[in-house]
Order: sequence, then C-alpha cells, then structure tokens
Amino acid sequence: MKLRIVLVEPEGRINMGFILRLAKNFNVNDICVVNPKFNILDEEVLNFAAKGSELAGQVRIAKCLDECLKDLELSVCTTSYYDVESDVIRQSISLKHMVSIASNYNSLALVFGRESVGLTRSELGRCDLVMTIDVGSEYNVFNLSHAVAIVLYELLGVRKPQQAVYGYLSSREQLNYIVNYAKEIATALGLKASDVEIALKHVLYKALITKAEGRVLYRLFKSIYFTLKHCGKPASDSVSEDSDESA
Amino acid sequence: MKLRIVLVEPEGRINMGFILRLAKNFNVNDICVVNPKFNILDEEVLNFAAKGSELAGQVRIAKCLDECLKDLELSVCTTSYYDVESDVIRQSISLKHMVSIASNYNSLALVFGRESVGLTRSELGRCDLVMTIDVGSEYNVFNLSHAVAIVLYELLGVRKPQQAVYGYLSSREQLNYIVNYAKEIATALGLKASDVEIALKHVLYKALITKAEGRVLYRLFKSIYFTLKHCGKPASDSVSEDSDESA
Repeated sequence: MKLRIVLVEPEGRINMGFILRLAKNFNVNDICVVNPKFNILDEEVLNFAAKGSELAGQVRIAKCLDECLKDLELSVCTTSYYDVESDVIRQSISLKHMVSIASNYNSLALVFGRESVGLTRSELGRCDLVMTIDVGSEYNVFNLSHAVAIVLYELLGVRKPQQAVYGYLSSREQLNYIVNYAKEIATALGLKASDVEIALKHVLYKALITKAEGRVLYRLFKSIYFTLKHCGKPASDSVSEDSDESA
Repeated sequence: MKLRIVLVEPEGRINMGFILRLAKNFNVNDICVVNPKFNILDEEVLNFAAKGSELAGQVRIAKCLDECLKDLELSVCTTSYYDVESDVIRQSISLKHMVSIASNYNSLALVFGRESVGLTRSELGRCDLVMTIDVGSEYNVFNLSHAVAIVLYELLGVRKPQQAVYGYLSSREQLNYIVNYAKEIATALGLKASDVEIALKHVLYKALITKAEGRVLYRLFKSIYFTLKHCGKPASDSVSEDSDESA
C-alpha cells in the first residue's frame, strides 16, 4: 500500500524528529507537512530522528492540506475528540476499522493535526473519513508522535508474517534426543516413562523452543543421563552416545 | 491484568515524561524505575507527561532490577537485537506472541532498557522471557517511549470491546425512512426501485452510519422527494410527511 503521512502545522521539533524515526522504523518514505512551525532540517529535528534523519530531505512542504491529499484514493483525518451524537464532522471510526477499510485501497493519506489543537473543523471536513484512537481509558489524548506510532503499528506492523518466536526453531530430531534422554532418566528413577515423554513433548512444543535453547536442554538431559549411568542408575543402555553437534 | 512498567536506568527526561503520559493514556498505575539518571519530578519530565504528571509521585525508584520484578507472575524483557542462532540469552518472542502468553497470567512486568544500550545481558537473564518488536523493516530500533507505546497498545489497546464506529449507530427505522424516500425518488425518475433499495441498503449498512450522519442523509432524500413532488414528479404519495425528529 502507498502510504503518506500528512502532518498539519506541527509545532514541535522533537515530535517531528520522532515521526521521521518512526517513518524509518515502518519503512514509510512519503511525508507531507503543511506549513511547519520550524525548519525540517533543524538540528534538534535531526537529532531526535536518529536514522530517520535520512528522510528529512525528502519531506514535502505544502501550503495547505489539499496539496498533501493529491493523487491518493483515501484520506483519513485523526482526532482525539469525537462527538457521540450531534456533530456530523466528528463522527469517527476506530483505528481497527480504519485498517479494515484501508485494506481495500491502494493508497492512503493519514492526516495528523497540531499538538495544541489538532485539526480544524475545515481540515477534518477535507478528509474522506475521521478516525479516533480510543484505548478505553479516561485520557484519550496521545502525544502526536505516539499517535503516529500506534497508527503505523496497527496499519503496517503485521506486514511481516507474524511469527511467534525469532531465530531458528529446534528441529524435531533435536527434540527427540531430549525426550529420549528424559525417558531413560525417568525409567532409571522408576517413573512412568510414557507420562514423562508426553508431558515433556507438550512442554517443548508449546514453548516453541529454538535451536540455541534446545542445545542447552539437550546437554542438560544428556549430562543427567550419563551421570546417573555412572552411578549405576539407568535401567537400559539404549541411548547411544551421540555427539552434541547432532542435536 | 496487573501490569507494571519497569524502566532500567532511563537517561532522558523527555522519554520519562512521554512514558508517564502513555501510562495515563493506557490506565497503567504501576511504574518502577531502576536508578534513573534524573529526578522523576524534574520540570521537563512533568511538562512532557501532560496529564500523566499525576502519576509521577507514585513512581517507585529501585536500586536494582530484581526489586522491580517482585510479586509478579511473569517478567518480559525487551530488546531490539535478537541473535538468530547461537546466543541463548537473546532468543526472543514476538510482541503478538508475548500478548498471547501474557493472557494466561494475572500479573506481568514489562522491562525496558536504557535509550543508549538497552538492557545488559545480566538484566536480560533476570526476565522469564525476552521480547523483540519487529515490524519487518530494516530499522528495528524504536525510541524508548515509542516502544512502550506500541507494546501497551498491543497488550491493552483491545481491552475495550472493539467497535468499528464511535457514536450512536443509526436506527433501522431511520435507515428505512431514507430507503423509502430513495425508492419513491427512483420510481418518480423511472428507475428500478428495487435495485435502488438493495444498493442503498448495502451502502448504508456497510457504512455503519451514525444517527448524525443518518439525519443529514434523511433530510437530503426527504428534500429531494418533496422538491420532485412539487415539480409533479413522484408517481405515488405513499411517503408520509414524518417529522425530522422521528428519523
């Protein structure tokens, strides 16, 4: 999706810097700023932008909101205040519903207002939709850059397939080695090996353990097994002395 | 869920202020700070906290991380860097998986490290789990307060039942009035009234329109109907002159 962040008359250099950093975090390159109250290339902006400072030179400066809404299929204005009954201009949708609607379009402008007073009624009227972030607390007014962070996260944060665990998942073979040692240990100690096998398999698979974690557990169980064996404990000798590398 | 935000040696007053504001936004009252590099009641902190400054006096200051992890069922440390293979201490879970795990516990500490260098290996080792926010871009390092915003949003932002639209939804009766006027108008103009009825119903129900929006549309269609009628256009007179208040 082609996404443009539109800021209307931002007042704070720190927020501007943070928003450039967020744009870099979320890989958004299209930023349009209406009549900023400072120089986008100000040193304080660039400091707070961290690696997002690379984007500062690409920011488009516009004289009015309409310039920033050109060439996009859908525009969404944001507001903290939503009148629940009488005011047609502040009839708002939720962030999650906006994401659901936006997924039907190829290009989208997200419009954020001033730190002090947000967007004017005239500006709200220029957008196709009005959106409010409401997390169910009494204090709904987010700092500008944090509102941007939350909206970008909800809209783009799931772009990457959502894995539960980072890193390389333990192989079935590695887990089998661990389980086999545990069964031998259980048998040696007079415990029911099949119960240990089942419980440990559930634990290992629920834990989505990684190779690095698996290696630690493998060495632990192997070490227990051979220590018990040297004490004359293991009932059988069925576990071969495989190398650490194979697990 | 009992949630504690734990900050380890935060360096920036602005971030501290923003995090207090976020705590207020998300209705989190339990904040524990290990060895902060400034006074929590510093004026700059309070300014950036906005209404979150109310929470500044309740922040607990601790000498070490363990003090902040007491009396909780689960602790999750955060890191931007996750070693994908060899380093057992940085084997990380994703934010969404953390939320799924945390939903099984009654109390949780979320631990965030220093702006400059994050959490030490020793601190990461104190937590039950390590988590990374990864949104699929090349630049994964979030500003501290924005990482807090995103984690709190994902964990707590759905606490409130997720409605799509804020405000009072238009009543079925109000929508029927609109549809009936539209059908009469269609008939008067020689169009297929049943097609207009179906299309308009789909549009109105897909749009989840509110009472305030419905009132505007109702008046529009009613006005068109009576204007056409005075031009001698409507074929029938079946729509009664109901008052605006009833729609």
